Amino acid sequence: MTAFQELMAFQRETEALGQVMGRLGWDQETVMPSGAGAQRAEEMGALDGVLHARRTDPRIGEWLEAAEAPDEAGARQLDEIRFVFERTQRVPARLSAALARTTSLAHRAWAEARAANDFEMFAPKLSEVLDLTREKAAALADGGDLYDALLQDYEPGASGAELEAMFGALRPRLVALRERVLGSERVVPPMDRAFDEAGQLAISTTLAAAFGYDLNHGRIDKAVHPFSSGSGLDVRITTRTELHNPSNCFYSTIHEVGHAAYEQNVDGAYLLTPLGCGASMGVHESQSRIYENQLGRSRAFTGWLYRQMRGVFGDFGVANEDDFYAAINRCNTGYIRTEANEVHYNLHVLLRFDLERDLVAGRLEVADLPEAWNARFFKDFGVEVDVPANGVLQDVHWSEALFGYFPTYTLGNVYAGCLNAAMRAEVSGLDEALSLGDTRPATDWLKTKIQRHGKRYQPKDLIGKATGAAPSEAPLLEYLETKFGGIYGL
Amino acid sequence: MTAFQELMAFQRETEALGQVMGRLGWDQETVMPSGAGAQRAEEMGALDGVLHARRTDPRIGEWLEAAEAPDEAGARQLDEIRFVFERTQRVPARLSAALARTTSLAHRAWAEARAANDFEMFAPKLSEVLDLTREKAAALADGGDLYDALLQDYEPGASGAELEAMFGALRPRLVALRERVLGSERVVPPMDRAFDEAGQLAISTTLAAAFGYDLNHGRIDKAVHPFSSGSGLDVRITTRTELHNPSNCFYSTIHEVGHAAYEQNVDGAYLLTPLGCGASMGVHESQSRIYENQLGRSRAFTGWLYRQMRGVFGDFGVANEDDFYAAINRCNTGYIRTEANEVHYNLHVLLRFDLERDLVAGRLEVADLPEAWNARFFKDFGVEVDVPANGVLQDVHWSEALFGYFPTYTLGNVYAGCLNAAMRAEVSGLDEALSLGDTRPATDWLKTKIQRHGKRYQPKDLIGKATGAAPSEAPLLEYLETKFGGIYGL
Repeated sequence: MTAFQELMAFQRETEALGQVMGRLGWDQETVMPSGAGAQRAEEMGALDGVLHARRTDPRIGEWLEAAEAPDEAGARQLDEIRFVFERTQRVPARLSAALARTTSLAHRAWAEARAANDFEMFAPKLSEVLDLTREKAAALADGGDLYDALLQDYEPGASGAELEAMFGALRPRLVALRERVLGSERVVPPMDRAFDEAGQLAISTTLAAAFGYDLNHGRIDKAVHPFSSGSGLDVRITTRTELHNPSNCFYSTIHEVGHAAYEQNVDGAYLLTPLGCGASMGVHESQSRIYENQLGRSRAFTGWLYRQMRGVFGDFGVANEDDFYAAINRCNTGYIRTEANEVHYNLHVLLRFDLERDLVAGRLEVADLPEAWNARFFKDFGVEVDVPANGVLQDVHWSEALFGYFPTYTLGNVYAGCLNAAMRAEVSGLDEALSLGDTRPATDWLKTKIQRHGKRYQPKDLIGKATGAAPSEAPLLEYLETKFGGIYGL
Repeated sequence: MTAFQELMAFQRETEALGQVMGRLGWDQETVMPSGAGAQRAEEMGALDGVLHARRTDPRIGEWLEAAEAPDEAGARQLDEIRFVFERTQRVPARLSAALARTTSLAHRAWAEARAANDFEMFAPKLSEVLDLTREKAAALADGGDLYDALLQDYEPGASGAELEAMFGALRPRLVALRERVLGSERVVPPMDRAFDEAGQLAISTTLAAAFGYDLNHGRIDKAVHPFSSGSGLDVRITTRTELHNPSNCFYSTIHEVGHAAYEQNVDGAYLLTPLGCGASMGVHESQSRIYENQLGRSRAFTGWLYRQMRGVFGDFGVANEDDFYAAINRCNTGYIRTEANEVHYNLHVLLRFDLERDLVAGRLEVADLPEAWNARFFKDFGVEVDVPANGVLQDVHWSEALFGYFPTYTLGNVYAGCLNAAMRAEVSGLDEALSLGDTRPATDWLKTKIQRHGKRYQPKDLIGKATGAAPSEAPLLEYLETKFGGIYGL
């Protein structure tokens, strides 16, 4: 075997073990007996130790030195292995261990603080996590920007400055759109009645199939928080139901199907290799969001969904497809990011991006974080945060040291905007198909342009190749202004 | 840390990874998407490689050399670790790999041969497996008996000669009992009507709870073949339903609960250590069989079960508790071991024990195996085997090189007989409790005497301590002759 083949064989086993770790996480959230948590922690800890030892195995360095890639895809495989190996080498074992220990404690402190609505209960642990994260960033940055160094874990090739420019262009037009929508005279009533769980889950499965989710290589279970898990031949999703809010179930399912179909549709040649998964968090989110929003919440598709719901639930108090489309896209102000509609969602993210960049740069102290949050929220949303659980304590990310993760949510929406514009310019009959519940013209295009490539290209290059232009916030803004201008008669 | 502590910490992680491997097996049989098999094989292969490397890690030898046990339980831990380590050392890596490869092919050949009812399709692969198994046995035996060397994987401390003596005493009285039962004038009709699956599963769950299965540390799913999986805080079982045969579901569940409750009830101090599981295959089977038969198929308990079934299914065509007791214990001759009643079951096992001992000793050729099987079956059961799938091809074990496994089934029944006799001598009011569906007087006794000790004692010592006498086939024979003498009016 050549050095390249040896390295790839070693890596293949590591990828397989990584899939096992993911499956343990799935099991924990869906089927694990309630009393098994303590043992599960030891099981995952032991497997994590195995994975860490493999990822830092000095033979990887030797193989990388000697390996010659047989082709361009092979060269990308080596790039990916080198990228991860070098980052792992740069962070001292002591620091990795301290971060694992501290985030575990911080996660518990955050959950307790949120339940008690008391930021002070979380602040000391958050400070510790932030200090360790800055230390890690310095080790990774090698003299460069701290935040940019962290960002590479989630969005390779992105920079804080570039995102700041893009997000800076988004923010004023989103705030303006938000004000116009909320000031509109059009009143959209919510769907407020009970929809039985069996009916919701039946439609959820229909939706998953409609968006091309392959149940021979996946399954749908219920979980408290919807998620997608796994790559390759076993990619599972979860959903949830709320008795009075069926769209939570439907759009959670479509969102997770976007993530899962992406993993299922990666070229089989990349199975269990570093290229055998989505290109980045941002590109991943672009797939889940375009499935959920530009396709799933379109006038054409909601018309079909309305007819499905009538078939299952009978008359549920919404008179026609147009009213249903408006109800599905109803805009109200809320405190919580994960419950936000398309108009508000990115404003939630932009707030977090600016604050976490300031935290990492040392421009903002943890003690001043709640005030900074509340001031910014009032500025962009026009509402005072009532309690910390609805403000600075709402998200889990910072307790887990995931600084640099938040902007990929909006980047995903921006990419979805670019892809949607390019797709609609290229593909004819897309809305006609959607109005019959047929997503294939859209999902086939996304599979060809994005999904099958896995991690073969850098995120920006991938979007550029798919759309013929560099990523820009403009298509997303045009899409949102046109769509909500129509619904709210602006 | 002392050498003992280092060794135990290392071992703990290995045990945790072993639990992960078991969970992957559970997942594969219950919830895995149908198309995920190829990837799952790579995942399990990678984890198996990790486990093998840990189990042969040379540091274990160094730790064992230096370790001093702090107490007697610690000394037993070291014994167990040494036992496994030395056996692993004795088998060359080349031979282990050849066995893994060959059994994988042999398993497929066996399944195809069974489907085609053609022993010749299996014979070449079985010969290869047997040759490799004999080579492995020679490496393990170090000049001693080959079969005894294999037996130690399943029943530490047992010998073929000792089993031969015990089984030799069982066989004539079982054959005689079988003839008397089948010659009896008492006709027991089978329960032959449809019982809906939901009702069967509801009673199955009630039965699991009645036998003390802890659903906070376990769960029940459906699978093609019922099994129990896991140790410690996460021990799962599966069951199955047959529309016209609800007792298959009920007694599969009780049997697996016997295995699972044993694992759940091991002293928590042994969690994720070599002592943190059942003492042997034989002792394990003693628990599943005493739950299933001596308790679950007793007149007292079947009376309660009859009333549960009446509650769920209404009048199902069995007039009273006595008729139900007879129906549940109905004896007919069948070809298949796994479907056999208490009178016939051990005759199936004894046949396999004698044949596999002859195979391993080189006294019987694979080519002559079907004829030997059929002749012996006719001698003990009075019936000619019709097709190989009902004879020599019915069990998976030999294709997987599990020579030495079969006798533990009957040893388990023998142990169950000993435990039942001792328990009934010690515990008063047992049948009164069983007739109310209360198994606690029995299961508490078994927990105290057997289950909590895990692998702390050698199997024979454990049974001896629990019953006050060396294991013997006599109590099982007395139990069977009394029980079936009563049912069939002998």
